[in-house]
Amino acid sequence: MNTSVATKITREQLDARLMSAIRPMAATLPESGIMAVVNYGQEKPGLIPFWAGEGDVPTPEFICAAASEALHQGHTFYTYQRGIPPLRQAVAAYLRRHFQVDVAPERVIITGSGMQAILQTVQALVGPGDEVVVVSPVWPNIFAAIHMQEAVARAVPLEWTHAAWRLDLNRLFDACGPKTRALFINTPGNPTGWIMDPADMLQVRDFARQRGVWIIADEVYGQFVYDRPRVTSFLELMEPEEQLIVTNTFSKNWSMTGWRVGWVVIPHAQALGQVYENLVQYSTSGVPEFLQYGCLKALTDGDAYLTRLVEQCRQGRDLVYERLSVVPRVRLARPQGTFYLFFQVAGESDSMALAKRLVDTANVGLAPGSAFGPGGEGFLRLCFAASHATLQAGVERLVAALA
Amino acid sequence: MNTSVATKITREQLDARLMSAIRPMAATLPESGIMAVVNYGQEKPGLIPFWAGEGDVPTPEFICAAASEALHQGHTFYTYQRGIPPLRQAVAAYLRRHFQVDVAPERVIITGSGMQAILQTVQALVGPGDEVVVVSPVWPNIFAAIHMQEAVARAVPLEWTHAAWRLDLNRLFDACGPKTRALFINTPGNPTGWIMDPADMLQVRDFARQRGVWIIADEVYGQFVYDRPRVTSFLELMEPEEQLIVTNTFSKNWSMTGWRVGWVVIPHAQALGQVYENLVQYSTSGVPEFLQYGCLKALTDGDAYLTRLVEQCRQGRDLVYERLSVVPRVRLARPQGTFYLFFQVAGESDSMALAKRLVDTANVGLAPGSAFGPGGEGFLRLCFAASHATLQAGVERLVAALA
Repeated sequence: MNTSVATKITREQLDARLMSAIRPMAATLPESGIMAVVNYGQEKPGLIPFWAGEGDVPTPEFICAAASEALHQGHTFYTYQRGIPPLRQAVAAYLRRHFQVDVAPERVIITGSGMQAILQTVQALVGPGDEVVVVSPVWPNIFAAIHMQEAVARAVPLEWTHAAWRLDLNRLFDACGPKTRALFINTPGNPTGWIMDPADMLQVRDFARQRGVWIIADEVYGQFVYDRPRVTSFLELMEPEEQLIVTNTFSKNWSMTGWRVGWVVIPHAQALGQVYENLVQYSTSGVPEFLQYGCLKALTDGDAYLTRLVEQCRQGRDLVYERLSVVPRVRLARPQGTFYLFFQVAGESDSMALAKRLVDTANVGLAPGSAFGPGGEGFLRLCFAASHATLQAGVERLVAALA
Repeated sequence: MNTSVATKITREQLDARLMSAIRPMAATLPESGIMAVVNYGQEKPGLIPFWAGEGDVPTPEFICAAASEALHQGHTFYTYQRGIPPLRQAVAAYLRRHFQVDVAPERVIITGSGMQAILQTVQALVGPGDEVVVVSPVWPNIFAAIHMQEAVARAVPLEWTHAAWRLDLNRLFDACGPKTRALFINTPGNPTGWIMDPADMLQVRDFARQRGVWIIADEVYGQFVYDRPRVTSFLELMEPEEQLIVTNTFSKNWSMTGWRVGWVVIPHAQALGQVYENLVQYSTSGVPEFLQYGCLKALTDGDAYLTRLVEQCRQGRDLVYERLSVVPRVRLARPQGTFYLFFQVAGESDSMALAKRLVDTANVGLAPGSAFGPGGEGFLRLCFAASHATLQAGVERLVAALA
C-alpha cells in the first residue's frame, strides 16, 4: 500500500537498516564454520560429504516402523513436556544397562535434539556476563549456545603433542574465575576423539564440588569408543543431587540425525524438573509423541544395531587412518573415540580456505578445524561414520589432492 | 562413589541448594497457568479436556501418509536449517492463495513449532532490559519468551465492555517508551477471539514506522474467523523490507498440534535470513525432513480439510455460545475468531481456583484466564475445536456446575 518508505534507497542500505534494528547478540551470532563449508559445497555434483556428524545410511526400518505406526494410530496431539513416561524409563534402563548407573526416570527429560539439550542447559545455568569454561576444540554450537545467553565462553584448548591430545588440568582450573558458573566437557570429544581419563574426571569433579560450579557433560559419543571396553560417564562419579547435567541424543547411536530428539539427565530435584519442563514448554512445547515411540523402539530393541554400527565405525576409523597416515603432509592420531578423524596438513594454516579448496579440487567435504574454536585451526575434521566404500572413494580423492 | 557430600541434609535442603545454583531467569520462569491445570487434572478418568488449543481428531491420514512415506524413503538425515525449498515455496503459495500477498520463498523460515517461531523472533529482536509491548490477554508463552531474554513485557489489556473486546490504541502507543523494541499483536487473538480492525492495523503500522519499532504479528488463527470472509494480514499492509515479522504454525489448520512445526515470515534481507538460520542451527538444528513432507502435503492438498475444520469450529462456537449464554452467571461474547470462548462467571474472581474446581466437580478441563496476563483474571478459556458430541457433553457438565 504505502510504498514511499521503500523508494530511492539501495538493497544494501535496506539490509543494513534492518540489521541495525535487531539485537546485537543476534547480529553477532556467527555462522557455524561447518555450515559455511556445507553451504559452499552442498550443491556440487558428485561431492562426497564427510563434513557433518552422520553416516550415509538412513534410520533402520524397525525404528521407522514404530514411529510410523504411532503416527497412524493418532499420537498426533500435544504431549508430556518432559517426554512420554515409557521413553524416560527406557533411557534410565539404557543408562543402567550400558553404564551401570542408577538414574531415576524423573531425572530424564526428552528434548528436541541433543542441541536443544545443550541449549536448555546453558539457558538454565548461565546468564549475561556469566562464564563457562569449555574444553576445546569442540562443536561450534557450544560456543554459540553460550553466546545466545550473552554469557562468555572461556576455551581451554587440548594440547596436541606427540600425535596425541592431552588436557592440562591446571590450565582448566586456572581458567575458572569468580564468574565461572559451569565447566563444559565433551568426552569422547568432537572433533578430536580425545577421551578424558577417569582419574582426571575425578579431579574435575572434586574441583567443581569445591567451587560450587556445574559440570555440563556432553556424552553424545559415549558408545563410540575403540580399543577399550567402554568409557566412564560422569553419572558414575557423582551423586544424584550434585551439580551435574549430562546431555545426549538419539542421533548418533541409531542413525537418527534427522529426527531431532535428545535427552538430558538432570539432578534429582523436583524444582529443577519443573525448570526444564518450562524451558521445553516455551521453546518448542515438546517432542512429537509419534517420534518418541520410534525412539523408544531404538532404546529397547536397538542394542544390536548399535554394536554393529560401532564396529563399522571402528573399521572405518582404521581405514581412513591407515590410508591418510602415509601421506607425508598429513599429521594425525588414531582416534580413541567419536567417529571423527581430526588431522593436520603441513603447510596449511587456514583450514577454512583448505576445506573450500578440497571441495573444489577433491570434491570431498570436510569441516574446517577453525570452526571448533581455540586449538582447532590448522586441522580438518573427517567423519568416518559412512559406509566403507564411500570412505574409500573419498579418502583416495583426499590422498590425491594432498599428495 | 564419594557420598560424603550428600549426607545429613534433607531433601528440601538439597533441592533449595540446587535451585540457588541455577540462573535467576530460569528459577523465576513461571509455570504456564494452563499447564498447571492440565497437570492438576490430566490423570482424572473421564475428564473432557477443553484446556488446550487443539481438537479431538488426529492429523488427517493423507498428511500422515506423506510423512510416513518420506520417513521410509530415508529422509532421515540433517537437512536445510531454513526448511526444505519446496516447503518454503508452498508456504509462499499458501499466503498468496489465502491472503493475496506476494511473499518471496526466501522470506519463509520453517521452525520447530509456532512456539519456536515466536521464541526465535524474540531472541532476534530483544535483549536484557529491552521492552516489548504486548496486547493482552494473550497466550502465556509470549510473556515467557520475553522473560527468557531477560527483557520486559509491557502488557496493554484489551477492554471488556458491553460484552465485546476493544483495544484502546492510545493506551497501546502510550505504553511504548524509549526501551520498546517491538509490539506483539496476536490477531485473531487467543484467548479472547478479538480481531484487530484493519484501520487500527494501519495506525499501528504508521506508529511502528515512525518509532522504528518492530511489529511481531502472531497470525496463527488467521483462518479461524467467522461471520466475515477473511481477516487482513499485516503482510498486506507493509513492504517486504519493513520491520515486520509474522509467526505461524501448521498445528491449528490441519490438526497437527503434535507435530511441532511452524513458520515465520521475515523481512526481505539476506543478512536476516542468516540470523534465523543461525538461531535454528543453535536451538534444534532444523525440523525433521520427513515431517516437512507431511507439512508440504498439508499446504498443497489441505485446503478442503481446512475449510471443513473452520466450518466445524463455527458450528462448535455457536453450540457452546448458545448453551452457555443462558446460564445466568455466565457473561460472554460470541467470538469472531480463533477457536476459544473466553467467558466470565459472576462472583468468581479466582480463575485458577475455579478451573481446578471445575476439574473436580464437572470433570471438564478449562484454562484459567489469569494465565493469559493482564485483563484475563476472572475469565475461563474453553477450546471449541472438539467434535460436537464432545462439546455438547462437556458444556452440559459445565452448565450443571455453574447453574
